[in-house]
Amino acid sequence: METLSIQTRRRNEFVDITPLVRESLRRSGVTSGISVVYCPHTTAAITINENADPDVVHDMLAYLNRAIPKEQPDFRHGEGNSDSHIKASLVGPSVTLLVEQGALVLGRWQGVYFCEFDGPRSRTVHVQILGK
Amino acid sequence: METLSIQTRRRNEFVDITPLVRESLRRSGVTSGISVVYCPHTTAAITINENADPDVVHDMLAYLNRAIPKEQPDFRHGEGNSDSHIKASLVGPSVTLLVEQGALVLGRWQGVYFCEFDGPRSRTVHVQILGK
Amino acid sequence: METLSIQTRRRNEFVDITPLVRESLRRSGVTSGISVVYCPHTTAAITINENADPDVVHDMLAYLNRAIPKEQPDFRHGEGNSDSHIKASLVGPSVTLLVEQGALVLGRWQGVYFCEFDGPRSRTVHVQILGK
Repeated sequence: METLSIQTRRRNEFVDITPLVRESLRRSGVTSGISVVYCPHTTAAITINENADPDVVHDMLAYLNRAIPKEQPDFRHGEGNSDSHIKASLVGPSVTLLVEQGALVLGRWQGVYFCEFDGPRSRTVHVQILGK
Repeated sequence: METLSIQTRRRNEFVDITPLVRESLRRSGVTSGISVVYCPHTTAAITINENADPDVVHDMLAYLNRAIPKEQPDFRHGEGNSDSHIKASLVGPSVTLLVEQGALVLGRWQGVYFCEFDGPRSRTVHVQILGK
Repeated sequence: METLSIQTRRRNEFVDITPLVRESLRRSGVTSGISVVYCPHTTAAITINENADPDVVHDMLAYLNRAIPKEQPDFRHGEGNSDSHIKASLVGPSVTLLVEQGALVLGRWQGVYFCEFDGPRSRTVHVQILGK
């Protein structure tokens, strides 16, 4: 398992970590199997989405911030970041990527994103690679 | 890894791919482990839901189309399918199924669905099976 | 693969199953790899979220119940639990946890939750562990 470091710069932000995940795979020497990218934080997540047009990420953040506002009736959590926890749980704490011929099997437009929902913060991501 | 082909027929549609995933497992000869079903598209996803009553899928699509409308304030992405990208990211790009005694471990009512959010299109799904 | 039993007590409820998942890992003897926690039900799910302050779970349930109400226009499914199926599919049927040095690699505040969306019921969860 490898642990990668990420510095986020805004409260809500998607950081393209595809290059980091590719380098981690290269170091492992695995040519066929899976790579699990895991977020150990409860106010951040991992997802896959288009990395060609940055407007896609803009629009997804716009939707999430509108659908899951920071202040909501009957919220109790004292830290004021319940929205961050909800976004993290819905987007999900990990992605499982496929590996073939020593490379990540990503679709033409796919990138792997670290999703910050309570930044800016110094964050980490774990990568576990299984296969041969 | 195997790649399966799927033809979708509507903009938003769930296609039951459980039989395809079962056949892929059979060909692999693996009897204990996991089967990762992965969608390489950024406007489609994979999920598990009830496959007995088709009304369950109808109701989930009705909810998604209402909760994530095609047109939204401050959307920028020029292709007009930001809703498709958001649905794809929230439903998720893959499912990890368990394998025991040479069979998929699915609950009594569970089926594996390819979720089209920007069809109709010709699509592919990758299946990676790990185990022994 | 191991199957664990869970008894839920409310219609919507998150049950912390981290101790059960830890015991399952210990019994496996695996020291490096992954542990897949899988829900075979179509009206329940698995997620990871904070387990320090119970208000986080309270707030997430409050959000889900408001965002995905039980009664919605054009719902057809006769059992009246379409909301449960939608919540289950969006939260997701499984989590993939990392294993290193014989332990689950969980962040400081992370716990593994069984998410009941149509209880109370007697439920099961499967755990499949891969690695060495």
